[in-house]
Amino acid sequence: MPKMDAGKARLTVAFQGERGAFSHEAALDVLGPGITLLPRPSFDAVFEAVVQGSADRAVVPIENSLAGSIHENYDRLQSRSLHIVGETQIRIRHCLIGIPGAVFESITRVFSQLPALDQCRNFFSAHPHIEAVATYDTAGAVRNVLNARVPNHAAIASRMAAELHGGTVMTEELEDDPQNFTRFLVLSRQAASIENATKTSIVFALENVPGALYHALGAFALRGVDLTKIESRPIRGRPWEYSFYLDAIGDPRGAAGEAVGDLKRVARDLRVLGSYPAGLKRDRSNESPAS
Amino acid sequence: MPKMDAGKARLTVAFQGERGAFSHEAALDVLGPGITLLPRPSFDAVFEAVVQGSADRAVVPIENSLAGSIHENYDRLQSRSLHIVGETQIRIRHCLIGIPGAVFESITRVFSQLPALDQCRNFFSAHPHIEAVATYDTAGAVRNVLNARVPNHAAIASRMAAELHGGTVMTEELEDDPQNFTRFLVLSRQAASIENATKTSIVFALENVPGALYHALGAFALRGVDLTKIESRPIRGRPWEYSFYLDAIGDPRGAAGEAVGDLKRVARDLRVLGSYPAGLKRDRSNESPAS
Repeated sequence: MPKMDAGKARLTVAFQGERGAFSHEAALDVLGPGITLLPRPSFDAVFEAVVQGSADRAVVPIENSLAGSIHENYDRLQSRSLHIVGETQIRIRHCLIGIPGAVFESITRVFSQLPALDQCRNFFSAHPHIEAVATYDTAGAVRNVLNARVPNHAAIASRMAAELHGGTVMTEELEDDPQNFTRFLVLSRQAASIENATKTSIVFALENVPGALYHALGAFALRGVDLTKIESRPIRGRPWEYSFYLDAIGDPRGAAGEAVGDLKRVARDLRVLGSYPAGLKRDRSNESPAS
Repeated sequence: MPKMDAGKARLTVAFQGERGAFSHEAALDVLGPGITLLPRPSFDAVFEAVVQGSADRAVVPIENSLAGSIHENYDRLQSRSLHIVGETQIRIRHCLIGIPGAVFESITRVFSQLPALDQCRNFFSAHPHIEAVATYDTAGAVRNVLNARVPNHAAIASRMAAELHGGTVMTEELEDDPQNFTRFLVLSRQAASIENATKTSIVFALENVPGALYHALGAFALRGVDLTKIESRPIRGRPWEYSFYLDAIGDPRGAAGEAVGDLKRVARDLRVLGSYPAGLKRDRSNESPAS
């Protein structure tokens, strides 16, 4: 199995969907343009590609600002024993994309993934003569519309999908709510170098006794370690027991790492999903050019 | 606006989708058979129906064991100022439903809502000649298949949808994962009577200082109050600030209520979404007949 590192060799990166998917955009954003893409039809196939070595990295969505955490990808992350080595956050902007020369007035059918259609409900309410047809994939809908060459068909997907497949963007920002962000994780078989890590993601279980979470969080609070995510989730088949996802900010060789070490002693099944550089997209406008 | 209470008058209950939707099943489970149903095409229309008084209650999904919390319904709950007055949990069992006399061997197209199709991927992998076509609604797909009378079309929906619309169940338990539960909330314009309440749901914001959540949870932990849900969510437009959903177990006139009162003093924008009888479906097998 070839060992690869960013900067040393060209990384092969698996993602769900077709070229132009939002996962593709996320992969370029966090790993740069020098990557080899491996589009896969399903998330299971994406994870398997990394486990079996046909890809070096996977880029998968883990939470959306409107729809919440994608528990199924947390489950896959745990069952496949992969490591989080990076993250990024992408603003989801939907475009209406037709064949070259398509005009908006003639569009009667619009194809896209159901979550994308859901996020553009105002558009469909305002144009009741347009039928919304669901597909498994946004960029795949663009490809199908372009292949079929029907002038009154269009797809909802990213501007990148339009550019890659040669479609015409008829309208932009079709989404009802502009505060539509998706967080993506970069996954690998090997853990990332701890040198540049500023965030640690863990999952752990607690017994169902009052105060268990309070005491668990004490490991972080009493050291002044900041948390950016905490989420409980019932454990399958064990009523009244919960697992927790937690993201802590800080150098894993410092207070954040000590807190995780402390928690390990009281929590059950604690697993470090990864320590990695936090992708602080929202703060970039405040960065000095030197940082 | 007519005031209604269970037991006094027939309640009108709004839900998203068509008769036979899983929300319909949840409504019957928690409110009993003596209700008048108001199927609505969208969640916004469901919430509006209660706000404007054309329905007394709404029954809406709030979290799924595989897909996570439905943040958009939390948002609607907050912006509409409705109260949670009950809850239940439904096992999601998918059936393959055709027209009367349909045989499985002849089926080539299957219609359902995308989340339902997603939950039956193994079925589609095992039968690659069957095309999965997405719709907005499970029970609506059944109605459309039955209206069109095409013998090689089928829908994926609940057994109840098949029975209500007169379809034939060809196969049951199509879902990949049987641990597929959805929690539904019952919503009302008025808060529930505090007499029978055993669970309180709140939402609150905390300043982004390390330990803020730890101190907030102390209000519950130091009183021995059990939590069944805690989830952080970034606040839109306020980077690095978080709101939290929290469900606490106990009599709101006792320790649970005191803890909420304490938290109100330190948290920002704390809102009690409702105090209501916990729907402890998973524990029913352990109940004595008298309870």
